[in-house]
Amino acid sequence: MRNIRIVLVRPIYGGNLGAICRAMKNMGLADLWLVRPEPDLNFEEAQKYAVHAADDILANRHQVDTVAEAIGDCAVVAATTGLKGLYRSHTKSPREVAPRLLESAQQHQVAFMFGPEDHGLSNEEMKLATHIVTIPSTNAYSSLNLAQAVMVCCYELWLATEQYQPPREFHPEAPVVMRERFFELWQHMLLEIKFCDEKKLEHMMMGFRRIFGRSYLSEADINILMGLARQAMWCAEQMKKEKPQMDADKR
Amino acid sequence: MRNIRIVLVRPIYGGNLGAICRAMKNMGLADLWLVRPEPDLNFEEAQKYAVHAADDILANRHQVDTVAEAIGDCAVVAATTGLKGLYRSHTKSPREVAPRLLESAQQHQVAFMFGPEDHGLSNEEMKLATHIVTIPSTNAYSSLNLAQAVMVCCYELWLATEQYQPPREFHPEAPVVMRERFFELWQHMLLEIKFCDEKKLEHMMMGFRRIFGRSYLSEADINILMGLARQAMWCAEQMKKEKPQMDADKR
Repeated sequence: MRNIRIVLVRPIYGGNLGAICRAMKNMGLADLWLVRPEPDLNFEEAQKYAVHAADDILANRHQVDTVAEAIGDCAVVAATTGLKGLYRSHTKSPREVAPRLLESAQQHQVAFMFGPEDHGLSNEEMKLATHIVTIPSTNAYSSLNLAQAVMVCCYELWLATEQYQPPREFHPEAPVVMRERFFELWQHMLLEIKFCDEKKLEHMMMGFRRIFGRSYLSEADINILMGLARQAMWCAEQMKKEKPQMDADKR
Repeated sequence: MRNIRIVLVRPIYGGNLGAICRAMKNMGLADLWLVRPEPDLNFEEAQKYAVHAADDILANRHQVDTVAEAIGDCAVVAATTGLKGLYRSHTKSPREVAPRLLESAQQHQVAFMFGPEDHGLSNEEMKLATHIVTIPSTNAYSSLNLAQAVMVCCYELWLATEQYQPPREFHPEAPVVMRERFFELWQHMLLEIKFCDEKKLEHMMMGFRRIFGRSYLSEADINILMGLARQAMWCAEQMKKEKPQMDADKR
């Protein structure tokens, strides 16, 4: 990710610039280049929106006059355009292009380039890119906010690094032998607490098997569910002892 | 997507609210619910940032006092939290959870829920969710801007609908027989224009095969490259005719 730069061509709004710095930091990018930013771009606003990315990414930005200066040393350059762009039939999605950028970034400088908020990149600027990228959106309204567009691209780059490991359940998934011990205990419990009689037991158990089979059950989950059954049976037992009369009545 | 609502709990900033409306419209969502927004939330600013989504999504928003009112009728509720949240070991990524929401949305109302900019959702609010979602980011800086977080989730929902068809090359990829006709013509051309001699020809052609084999070549591309070769051979022919002397000298 160190070799991947984000190039903003003629950016206009400080708020977007700041949000972009923050998005870059969220997704592990650090190298920001501005090509001829709007003279009255509000850098104070940018600083506010950058939050914790202000002191490094915003402060360490490169600022140059031409696209050629910003990407001259890059091997792969992905330029973004709206759905209706001239190069429509050649565009790739950020998800398609991210692995290509990462692969090249192992050895070379590479860039992800974004045009100004109002009109996007010019055809001249577009020509310097090796890849044209369009972010999937509805045809009805395909114009993304600049900071949002950068976020989507940075997010796809970050996921493509495969550095993000989704958190996994700490407890292992319960094997069949444990699940069956649990179902057997529940079967006893259903009878003990008189939830149903022997005749309906099998039908009820099919229902519980469906409920608990629909998704992941960990060993810890099974232990909780078995504990619950034992407690319910203990209650039923106490009831029998303390109120033998009532119990007898019921029979 | 009609049955998927975006629920913002106690949102604070108008700019974020507007950017969220725009992101929703980009990604084909329309149903926005606000739970007890900050009393001085700047709706004018929201309107500005919403751009074309102001008249429908922002104007048609629902506004309620409690999370329960916003999601009470939903079958699946995905709530977002930062990486360091209490529920860390149970979180899924937006990409994992998007198909589950879409599946349920075929028949039911479902919700994607986001907390306020400063502190996120409370544990009480979190409890009402069926799924906890965390957006992948670096551990170093995992706090996303609210509008950016909503964009990533909407983008994953939109991609999961598979309604987005990436544009494909109009011209079909060239088959081997056409590629070989092209290489044969280039071989002639290299000799005709004296780019190399017979001895080095095979080595050079391996180089060109590598260059042109690295990626996609359409039939249209092949036609352009063959046209170029023919033109170069025509020039070499003209040269021979006009300057027989020079040609003879060279030999």
